[in-house]
Amino acid sequence: MGLSYAGSRYLGWQSQPDGRTVQDVLEAALARFAGQRVRTLCAGRTDTGVHALGQVVHFDSRVQREEFSWVRGVNAFLPPDVAVQWARVAPAGFHARRSAISRRYSYVLLQSRVRGALEAQRAGWSFRPLNGAAMREAAQLLLGEHDFSSFRAAGCQAPSPVKTLTRLEISQCGAYWRFDFEGNAFLHHMIRNIMGCLVAVGQGLKPPQWMGEVLAARRRSAAWATFSADGLYFLGPRYAPEWDMPARTAAFDWLPAAGGSTNT
Amino acid sequence: MGLSYAGSRYLGWQSQPDGRTVQDVLEAALARFAGQRVRTLCAGRTDTGVHALGQVVHFDSRVQREEFSWVRGVNAFLPPDVAVQWARVAPAGFHARRSAISRRYSYVLLQSRVRGALEAQRAGWSFRPLNGAAMREAAQLLLGEHDFSSFRAAGCQAPSPVKTLTRLEISQCGAYWRFDFEGNAFLHHMIRNIMGCLVAVGQGLKPPQWMGEVLAARRRSAAWATFSADGLYFLGPRYAPEWDMPARTAAFDWLPAAGGSTNT
Repeated sequence: MGLSYAGSRYLGWQSQPDGRTVQDVLEAALARFAGQRVRTLCAGRTDTGVHALGQVVHFDSRVQREEFSWVRGVNAFLPPDVAVQWARVAPAGFHARRSAISRRYSYVLLQSRVRGALEAQRAGWSFRPLNGAAMREAAQLLLGEHDFSSFRAAGCQAPSPVKTLTRLEISQCGAYWRFDFEGNAFLHHMIRNIMGCLVAVGQGLKPPQWMGEVLAARRRSAAWATFSADGLYFLGPRYAPEWDMPARTAAFDWLPAAGGSTNT
Repeated sequence: MGLSYAGSRYLGWQSQPDGRTVQDVLEAALARFAGQRVRTLCAGRTDTGVHALGQVVHFDSRVQREEFSWVRGVNAFLPPDVAVQWARVAPAGFHARRSAISRRYSYVLLQSRVRGALEAQRAGWSFRPLNGAAMREAAQLLLGEHDFSSFRAAGCQAPSPVKTLTRLEISQCGAYWRFDFEGNAFLHHMIRNIMGCLVAVGQGLKPPQWMGEVLAARRRSAAWATFSADGLYFLGPRYAPEWDMPARTAAFDWLPAAGGSTNT
């Protein structure tokens, strides 16, 4: 299943005893639709307040229904800020997390002297102007395979801090900036910690080369403060083409984009 | 003052005894900042659930502060979904409503088999595909000065149903459609009632010429049902250039736009 959600009201993806997570509301809706308990597994666990455009989950069920009935039926039991976008019977061997070859995130940031209102909880905010050239120079230093310990939250449970960042593109869309990340996997808080450093460079508080020093230090204390979750969107995983899974949802067109509605 | 707000939590602009309106929260914040009661008057009263990017209000106060202090100071007392965007000392004779020569609104609509999640309460929804050429043909019939009684809510208090619609442009932005309205003034529910008819035409339930019949009938029962408030945004008034009032805010770049960040 592909899933979109606004993360603002939820304590992230992962199920918790008090039930205020996206996984909890999804599994409750699936249980009502399927008439049996359903356990889901997702492509990328999102944190408190983080949104998703194309989260992917898989689950096992003996219930046989048309694919679109799963979409419409489960949506009837979901709150307005969570919605299934597509569903299909997965080929044998498909695994939402392990079959993913990369994950994509976008961060959307308002640059304005004044805070936003409509985009509250949907975009980060910098009241200082940002220097795009300086941020892009800093971003280049992060591409490739690195030990990203400097951008790793204390509680991170990943077995290794070595990840490969294949894309970090920065574009300006009117009053908004958009930061597009793609990598094989991300550490806990990694994007928000990178964003804190990029914004520090963009505001001129640190030079671009400083990003290389932070990376090389391999300790969290070398980096800037963790940036707000408000503007962070999980676009979703990429799978090898043979799995034939949809790579985007309608909500991709909702985010500000430099080239109009050409989000890829 | 220029003001942006998300209308979802409010019973519209106009002050009410129970205080759950945008005017109520703005006047409460102004009173705390100015240390005295302040009564505001706005360029266009928005309904329950309707958003604003560039609402304009004026008020009288003996308090003397820097213009930007009004912005930052009042915002400190406003909830996250309402924010002052600019403030200036108005020239003598300026009146937020009477000085306006036109008002602009945009309606944003998701076209998708499946409902949205992130854009819940921020966009209308059509699960059927829409025919842009048919909607544009119907929209042409509404341009100019007309008696818009067919699109007027029962409780409308406007002295006359005759208004001039100078612009109704329809553009597709990926999965979203955007409808841009400009006119000298609008009747109560006029845009949402026009939207109901345009979507009926776009879905092929009525031919484009039917819009002319609806207009000519001059009775509400001739038109389609009122469309949802979720996707309606008051962009703001236009004033003659000599008043020197800002015509846009950062939030203009938040809405989906066919040409990217070129909203005008």
